Amino acid sequence: MGGARFADKLAAAVARNDSLVCVGLDPDPRQVPDAVRARADWLAYFAAGIVEATADLVCCYKPNLAFYEALGEAGLAGLRATLRAMPAGVPVLLDAKRGDIGVSARAYAAALFDDLGADAVTVSPYLGFDTLEPFLAYAERGVFVLCKTSNPGAAEFQDLVVERDGARRPLYEHVARAAVRANQQGNVGLVVGATHPEAFRAVRAAAPDLPLLVPGVGAQGGDLAMAVGEGQDAHGRGVLIASSRAILYASRGPDWQDAARAVAAELRGAINALRRTRAR
Amino acid sequence: MGGARFADKLAAAVARNDSLVCVGLDPDPRQVPDAVRARADWLAYFAAGIVEATADLVCCYKPNLAFYEALGEAGLAGLRATLRAMPAGVPVLLDAKRGDIGVSARAYAAALFDDLGADAVTVSPYLGFDTLEPFLAYAERGVFVLCKTSNPGAAEFQDLVVERDGARRPLYEHVARAAVRANQQGNVGLVVGATHPEAFRAVRAAAPDLPLLVPGVGAQGGDLAMAVGEGQDAHGRGVLIASSRAILYASRGPDWQDAARAVAAELRGAINALRRTRAR
Repeated sequence: MGGARFADKLAAAVARNDSLVCVGLDPDPRQVPDAVRARADWLAYFAAGIVEATADLVCCYKPNLAFYEALGEAGLAGLRATLRAMPAGVPVLLDAKRGDIGVSARAYAAALFDDLGADAVTVSPYLGFDTLEPFLAYAERGVFVLCKTSNPGAAEFQDLVVERDGARRPLYEHVARAAVRANQQGNVGLVVGATHPEAFRAVRAAAPDLPLLVPGVGAQGGDLAMAVGEGQDAHGRGVLIASSRAILYASRGPDWQDAARAVAAELRGAINALRRTRAR
Repeated sequence: MGGARFADKLAAAVARNDSLVCVGLDPDPRQVPDAVRARADWLAYFAAGIVEATADLVCCYKPNLAFYEALGEAGLAGLRATLRAMPAGVPVLLDAKRGDIGVSARAYAAALFDDLGADAVTVSPYLGFDTLEPFLAYAERGVFVLCKTSNPGAAEFQDLVVERDGARRPLYEHVARAAVRANQQGNVGLVVGATHPEAFRAVRAAAPDLPLLVPGVGAQGGDLAMAVGEGQDAHGRGVLIASSRAILYASRGPDWQDAARAVAAELRGAINALRRTRAR
C-alpha cells in the first residue's frame, strides 16, 4: 500500500492482471475452513491464502472493517498483518462506510489513511460533502461515496425524488452529481449496486468519469452483464466488480485456495467477455 | 454498562443527577493537559479523571470512536479501559455513526453491543432502515439515528425537499418519521443539531416521543434555550445535550478536573433553568 496514487495503482493492476475483480475480505469465523479457524493466526493466514491464490487475477482487495471490528483486538491485529502482507502492486480499499463531521471526520480519515495506510476507502454522504473534505484532502487516495446500494431497503431514502433547478431526480442522483463536483483531484468514486439497472444507468450518466465500485454481483446473471456493459468506460475500465463470500468461502475443505482461485478466475473471465463489447 | 434497558438506565441517571448533560469523550492527544499526555495510560487516565469529576452531574457518557480509532491499538486498549471504569449507573453511548448492509451491519452491531458492550450507539440512515434492523434487534440497547446534523453542509442532502403522499417534506423529516415507525421496542432516538430551530421543531413534531441527542450546543446562547425548550417532553426530559471539548479541555493546567467539573455544572445549571419552563 501507499506510494503511487490510487487511480494510477488501480489502473496498473487492472492492466497487469487484465481484471476488474475486487476481492472483498469479509473474514467470518463461522465460514472459514475449520483447518484455518483452528490456527491462532487464522485471520492473517486466511487473508494471505486468499491473496496468494488470487493476486494475479484481481485489481483490488477490499477488507471490510465490520468483520475485523467484531473480533476486537484480534481483529485489529489480524487486519494489520493482512495489510502488511498485501502485494505491492494491488491497491487496498478499506470498506469502512465512515461518515462524521469536523474533527471527528478528520480523525476517521487519519485512522484509515495514516494509521492503517489504505489506498482508498468507502464513506457515507448523508452528512454532506463538506464532511468528506478531510478524506478528499488526501489527493493520492481514493474516496468511494455510497450512492445507490443493493440492499432491499435502499430505495427508502436513496430513491426519494427531489425537485431542484426545475428537474426531478432521485436522491442518489444528487449524490452522484455532488461527487462529480467534488472530484477536483481525480480521487472520487461511487458505490453503486447493479440490482436496479435504471438507477445504475442514471448514476453512470451523471458521473461518466468516476470509477464505480459494484458490490454484490454474482458471476452469473444479468446483473454482471449490465454492470460491466453499462459501467465500463471507453477503455473497458472504470468499474470494480466486488465479490467476497463467493470467492472466500468457495470451499471449506483443504482445497479452499484452489476453489477461491477458480471462482475468481471464472468471475474475471465472465467480466472480460463483457468488456469492450459496446461503444459508448 | 449492560444490565438494565438503555431507556431505563438513562431515565434513572437523568433523575438521580438531575441532568440532561451528555459528556462526549473526544480524547485528542494535542489537547489534553501535558501532564496527562505524558503518561503511558493517558487515554484511560484522562477519561477516568473526567468521569471522576463529572459522574454526579451527567446522564450519559459518549465516547467518540473516531478519536480512539485514530490511535490504533493504543486507542482500542484505552477505550476498553475507559469502558471498564464507567460508573454503573451512567449509560454509555458509543458515537460510531455506523451504516452498512446485511452481514456487515450485523458485524458492526456485534462489535459495538457485544464486544464493546455499549448501552447505545449512533448509526447512519442513508442505506435505509432495513440495514438498521441488526442494531434495533438489541431491544435493550439504544439506537440514535442521524437525522439533521449541525455542520455547515448538513443541508446539502438532509434538507432536500421530497414530495410524497401529497406532502412536501425535507429528507430529515422522512428520516424522523421512519425512526418513529422503527421504534417498536422503545429503543430508537434521533441525532438533531440545534443550529436550525425550524428543523429542530419539525423533527420534534414528527417524533414527539423519541429521545433527541443534540450535539454541538454551548452553555451560552439561544441554541441551548431552543434545544431544551423545544426538545424536552412533558416531564422535562427526552433530550440529551452533548458537550465534549468545552468540558474536556476546560483547562490544560493541573486544575483540569476542577475546570471540567465547573463547565459541566454550569451547563447542567443552564439546562435546568430552561427545563419545565413551557407547557407542551
